Parts: sequence; C-alpha cells; structure tokens
Amino acid sequence: MSLLNETHDPALRSWVASANHADTDFPIQNLPFAIFRRKGGSERFRGGVAIGDQIVDLAAVAAAGVFDGPAAAAVQAAAQEKLNALMALGQPAWSALRLALSRALREGAAGQPRLQACLVPQAAAQYEVPARIGDYTDFYTSVHHATNIGRLFRPDNPLLPNYKWVPIGYHGRASSIGVSGQAFRRPLGQSMPPGAAQPAFGPCKRLDIELELGVFIGPGNAQGEPVDIARAEEHVFGICLLNDWSARDIQAWEYQPLGPFLSKSFATTISPWIVTLEALAPYRVPFQRPAEDPQPLPYLDSAANREGGALDIQLQVDLRTARMREAAQAPATICRTSYRHAYWTVAQMVAHHTVNGCNLQPGDLFGSGTLSGPTLDQAGALIELTAGGKQPLALPGGEQRTFLEDGDSVVIRGWCEKPGAARIGFGSCEGTVLPALPTPQR
Amino acid sequence: MSLLNETHDPALRSWVASANHADTDFPIQNLPFAIFRRKGGSERFRGGVAIGDQIVDLAAVAAAGVFDGPAAAAVQAAAQEKLNALMALGQPAWSALRLALSRALREGAAGQPRLQACLVPQAAAQYEVPARIGDYTDFYTSVHHATNIGRLFRPDNPLLPNYKWVPIGYHGRASSIGVSGQAFRRPLGQSMPPGAAQPAFGPCKRLDIELELGVFIGPGNAQGEPVDIARAEEHVFGICLLNDWSARDIQAWEYQPLGPFLSKSFATTISPWIVTLEALAPYRVPFQRPAEDPQPLPYLDSAANREGGALDIQLQVDLRTARMREAAQAPATICRTSYRHAYWTVAQMVAHHTVNGCNLQPGDLFGSGTLSGPTLDQAGALIELTAGGKQPLALPGGEQRTFLEDGDSVVIRGWCEKPGAARIGFGSCEGTVLPALPTPQR
Repeated sequence: MSLLNETHDPALRSWVASANHADTDFPIQNLPFAIFRRKGGSERFRGGVAIGDQIVDLAAVAAAGVFDGPAAAAVQAAAQEKLNALMALGQPAWSALRLALSRALREGAAGQPRLQACLVPQAAAQYEVPARIGDYTDFYTSVHHATNIGRLFRPDNPLLPNYKWVPIGYHGRASSIGVSGQAFRRPLGQSMPPGAAQPAFGPCKRLDIELELGVFIGPGNAQGEPVDIARAEEHVFGICLLNDWSARDIQAWEYQPLGPFLSKSFATTISPWIVTLEALAPYRVPFQRPAEDPQPLPYLDSAANREGGALDIQLQVDLRTARMREAAQAPATICRTSYRHAYWTVAQMVAHHTVNGCNLQPGDLFGSGTLSGPTLDQAGALIELTAGGKQPLALPGGEQRTFLEDGDSVVIRGWCEKPGAARIGFGSCEGTVLPALPTPQR
Repeated sequence: MSLLNETHDPALRSWVASANHADTDFPIQNLPFAIFRRKGGSERFRGGVAIGDQIVDLAAVAAAGVFDGPAAAAVQAAAQEKLNALMALGQPAWSALRLALSRALREGAAGQPRLQACLVPQAAAQYEVPARIGDYTDFYTSVHHATNIGRLFRPDNPLLPNYKWVPIGYHGRASSIGVSGQAFRRPLGQSMPPGAAQPAFGPCKRLDIELELGVFIGPGNAQGEPVDIARAEEHVFGICLLNDWSARDIQAWEYQPLGPFLSKSFATTISPWIVTLEALAPYRVPFQRPAEDPQPLPYLDSAANREGGALDIQLQVDLRTARMREAAQAPATICRTSYRHAYWTVAQMVAHHTVNGCNLQPGDLFGSGTLSGPTLDQAGALIELTAGGKQPLALPGGEQRTFLEDGDSVVIRGWCEKPGAARIGFGSCEGTVLPALPTPQR
C-alpha cells in the first residue's frame, strides 16, 4: 500500500503565489500546523496551517464553515488554543483536513475567496508552544552521538552494551519548553572543575546545543496497554525541530546515577511548525541496521519499519554571534546532517515507550536525541564538533567558539528534498543565550 | 517567629465526633486536601478537606457562601476539579482557609449547621489524583538508600562523589501517576540475565516498591528566576505519600547513561490526601548533617533550614499478599522509618531545582526518593530489605518474598505524633500488582 496520495503530487500549485516558489518551506504539499496569533494584540492563540508566506487561520475557517464532514470536525478541534484536541482525533481526521485544505488551496479552487479571507501573513504572526505537553521524553537515537559523547564522558567505555538493544530515553522537563525565538539566561549551577577538591558554583561555562527533532504524539494509549509497533505511527501527529540546550559542566557532575537533570531543564526550544507524518511520506527510507549489529527484539521490529521506518530529513545548524548580528553578517553553518542516520525509528520509540504499559497522551513530546551523523562535521553538538572544547570552531570574521557565549543565537533548520517530490521544510527553530544572573553572595 | 498558631492547639476538639478519636489521622489540627466525589455516581470531582471520618465538600461550602474574605476566594479555587488553582493562590490564602475551617469545625462553632450540610462520609467517597501534574521530579534524598542501592548496582563505588553536594534528582513520568487504590499490570520489558549473551524480554521478575513522600508545589517561579532557599517553602503546598514502583531487572539494564525510564514509568501511586506544610509545623526538626560531611553550598543553606527544615514524619510499609487477603489476615509490616533521616530537605529540593532557572508550576510534584533509614529494617525498598533478592523476607503464614508477586498489595502509611502536639496522619497509599499481559509472540 502506497502512503502517497493526491496531496503529495509534486505538480500541485497553489493560488497562494508564495507557496509555489522553489525554495519555500511551505508548498501546498506540506501544510504543517502551528499555534499562532497576530503580533502586538490581545487576540487569542489558535491553530494555523502554513502555506507559502501565509497562515490559514483555522479558527476563521471553522467560524466560516468552509469545510464539512470529518474535515469540519478536525478544523473545529484545530481552532482551539492548543492542538491537543486535533492531535487526539487521529490519522483519519488529520488526513481529511489535509485533503480539504489541499483541494481548497489549489490553483483554480472554487473555495479560494472564502479561504483567502482566512489568511494571515506569517510576518505578522507570533507563535506559542503548539500543545499542552503533558510529558516530554528525550531519546538518544543517534549511535554516532552516543559514541562521540560517550568517549568524552567515559573514554574507556564509550558505547554502553545496552545501546544497540534498548532505545535509550529519559524523561525531560516539559515546563521550560519554549517556541522558536526563546531567549534564556545562561544557567547557574554546580560543576566539579578538574582536580578541584569541591564543586564550584556559578554560571555554566560549557553551554551547548543539541540538534534534535521533536515528535508530537496524537492519540494516546490506555495505561497497561502497550502499542504494537505495527500500529505505532497511528499515535504520531508530526515532527518539529528541537534544540535541547545542555550545560555540559553541570551535566558531567550531576548525571550519575539518575541521568541529566538541571543541565537540561532550564530551556528547550522547538519550532512553531509541526510537519505531519503524512506530509513526510515521500521521504521515508529503509531503516538499515549494519549486518554485524544485533537485530531488534521482536517488539521493536516490523517489516514496515525495516522498509520505510526512517525519514530522510536534512538538518542544518547555524550560529549567529552578537558580533555577526551587529555587523548584519550571515550566520555560520556549523553542522549539516540527516535524520536518516538515526539508529532507532519513530515507531520504535513509541513501541518501546509503551511496552511497559506507560500511557502516552495527546500532545506528549518525544525528542529524538542529538542527531549526529557518521562524520564529525555532521555532529549535532558543540561538545562533539570541538572535541570536548579542545578544538575551537573557526567562525567567519575571525571569531571562534568552543561553547556558546552570551548573545549567541542558534538556528536549526530542516527540510526534505529529492527528485520527483516537492521540497518541504520545517521553518526554523531559533534560541538566544542571555547573560547569567549574578551569582548570589549569600 | 513561631510557625505555630491557634489551628495547632492540641486541645482543640471538633463537633465532628470522629475527629476527636485518639487514633484518627484527621483531627481538626490536620485538615488535609483531596479531590473526591461520591462513589458510583457521575458527580464531578471537587476539592475536599478531611475531618475525622468525613470530608468537608468544598464545592458545597463555596456554593453555600459559608466563608468570606480570603477564605472565600480560597474555597472557590478549591471547589474546582483539580487543586491547581488553590495551589497557585499561595500561603496566605491556604492559611486563611485553614483558619476558617478550623474555627467552623470546632466544638460550639456557630457555623456548625451550615458546614454539617457540606459533609460527605469518607466511606462513600472515591478519589482522584489531586492536581494536574505538569511535571514530576523524583529526588534521591536518603543517603542510606543511595548507599544501599549503590552497593548493589556498583559494589566498588556505592555512594558517588556528587551525592553529598548535589540533591540528585531526575524527571519522572507524570501520566502514569495514580491515586491510592491503583492496580497495574506487571510491566513487560528488557532485562539482561546474569551471564546471558543477549537481553531477555518478558514480565518483570524483580518488581519492587519505593517508600517516598510526594511534595506538591504551590505558586511557581518564572523561567530564569531561581527561588532563594529562604523563600523556598512559600512554593510548597503540602505533602502526600508516594510509592515509586520499580522494575529492578529492567532498571539495571536500561539505566545507563541517562537514568531510569521504563523501570519506573508504568505506575506511581500517591495518597489522596495532601497534608499542608502549615499542618506539619509542630513536627519540624533540625536538619542535622554529620560534622564530618561537607556543609551545603550557600544556595542550599539557610539558618531556618538548619533549625527546622526537616520533618519528623513516621512511615510504615505493609504488604498484603493474595493469600493474606483470602484468609482475611492482617498485612505484614515490612518497614518502619521516618522522613527525618533524609539528607536533603524540601526547601533544598526547591532551591536546587530552580537554581538553573527551571520554572516550577502549581501542581508539580516532587518525590523525595526512597526514604530508607539508617538501619536495614528501615529500608524503603525490597531490594534493600532482601539484600538484592538474596535474603527473602519471612511473612506471617509461612509465605516469603524477595520481590512482589501478582496479587500483592502494598500500603504506605504516614503520621506525626509527639507529646504536646496533636497526632496527624496522611491516610494511606495502596496499590496492587496485576498479572502481566501475555508476552507477544510476533
């Protein structure tokens, strides 16, 4: 069964002219969801779908009664202040809304005048975290990242024996997740300087990024009822960009034996736009595990997962320093990679997370873990790119970086492209480091 | 400044006769909060306060307009389906409501007839998790537990060097937290049997308990704004009982390097009743750290914390097997200890959690970590009580246990008592192990 349908046809064009530009992230084949409102007012937030440089205001679409049937029910759910209700509806409802929007936005569509009245320019919009995130789980799905960082934290034991069997994950902090544009203070905390007799307290000195994707959960499962891998993707609404900011010095001192805590919980930034699994269907690729590696246990294995469980999403990290910003200089690209290198798929994450009976809920978020690729220039964290801070990155304009400095902004971008399919993108996920608070002298 | 006021007077008696029994958990000096409704109906859930064997229905109190001023605002907030709004109001509002309830429930109170109409017998009630728990954080505050369990997981390195400096904690799973009475299936998962070449998959074989207290957060803090330890307790609503069920075989295989995940996320059980910090004021004790230990860093230290930051809460764990239940036999007490042995206080948990700028929100829950005391019979987990499963516990009736078997129920109780103060209790926190699902054969 093909996962492709008329909404993926690369020949489709929209009457929204900007959606037909070759380099747009948001052609008619994409149709990602966000929560937005017009900037500078007191409008309530509601769901929107990106088309070119515009947003289809789903509250306006719902109020105007543009659609009927399952698409109307879906657009009512999407008109709320968070996308949880839409996420809970499930794949048939999402598909119905996607098809209705695709048909209404096509060149020559009869519904053009009614939908035109529902457009808001993206340039006039502000965004919010798109769901009430009940629980946030961060995985560790890049074997390259696990090996690179393991070598720094445990030189004699980089890749632990469980890695190729267990999709390692841990619970993250939901309250401090913000949307692109988030600025946060450099965290204060404890670290143990090399050779010191007691820990130091003060601003983090090794502030890092983690290039990740975020996976939003759709319908949940009842407590005690695992999700079979064959049905795992029915529980996935879509994918966004995610930066898991990390305080490496705090992490090294605190993480044993219960894992990272304050080194991560100060901020996590996600993109406003969630690209649905359906939009990503043309970019499915086989999930290839090296023949010499153990094959997944049965609960983590399925033919569909092997044949098309991975996604070829191109990823890029740009760094813009304060000096670059002042000089109106282009940011420096510090990493390029693809999600196809991940060792565990989205379906495997869902099947593993629920195998013990843990209940997922609509709006839950998974992080993929840092998506470092096989070579070091494909690494998704500064700690890898700079060999633990020993080899600074040279930046244009004579600057260099080991870890982040105050005023640095990091921008993650993601997109999919290949011959025979429409290019689709994720927009961007940007965050900025503010100076730390003064260290208290009490 | 004394933290005691007229509501703590041990001579107070209530016109609710059952509140004056010597052994009640809920005398007029306690007044803990829960979310409840009458069993077997379709009433909505709302806040209630325990008095003897009755519940003061706060939605009924609000509707009847019994109180005025700040107590009326607090009771309106407490009438909702979860306690988050009451938690957000803060200490002055909680105190006003406590004082108003204390006065109205006293023998001879003028308000008796109006309040009497708002009582629901506890025997007729069912409970729910009392707050929407945005984030759940589990700490590790017993040095005895950390040492005991560290010895089992890392014989040569039981207590890690960070333990006495860092109040170790990690993010837990909020969605699977249930209220007393919760029954859950034994989890399925991966483990690595000793000497095996590859992991096994199936029902957990080493299912354990963790005796903990839960701390509900009141008003939150803004992201980027740490809470000073001197004001930390203003952010704490109250304390409940908590059982952090743990699958030790799954935990041992999965926990490195990011900490426990599926070994904990299948279920966590809390008591319905939350005892406020104000009710616990008579049971504050000095927080004593051995002189040879490092003293806390300044952000974790205050005079008030040293003088009265610890709480002397007595704790007991009872085990009722299926056979005991069938024989209508009393459960076996397997552990007795006190929260006073914890190495880190509630105020230190709040100050540490927020020092990096992490934002707490009303209704967030902290677990204390397993509250094992200094001697092995005070250990709060079977893995400690049975020396890692090597020394079974003998139970009355000829049974024995290393880890939990299907049909076992575990009941945690907590109370405070001392001469010159009213005895107050936490009620109970009970959970039952159901058989695992069949292991899938795909």
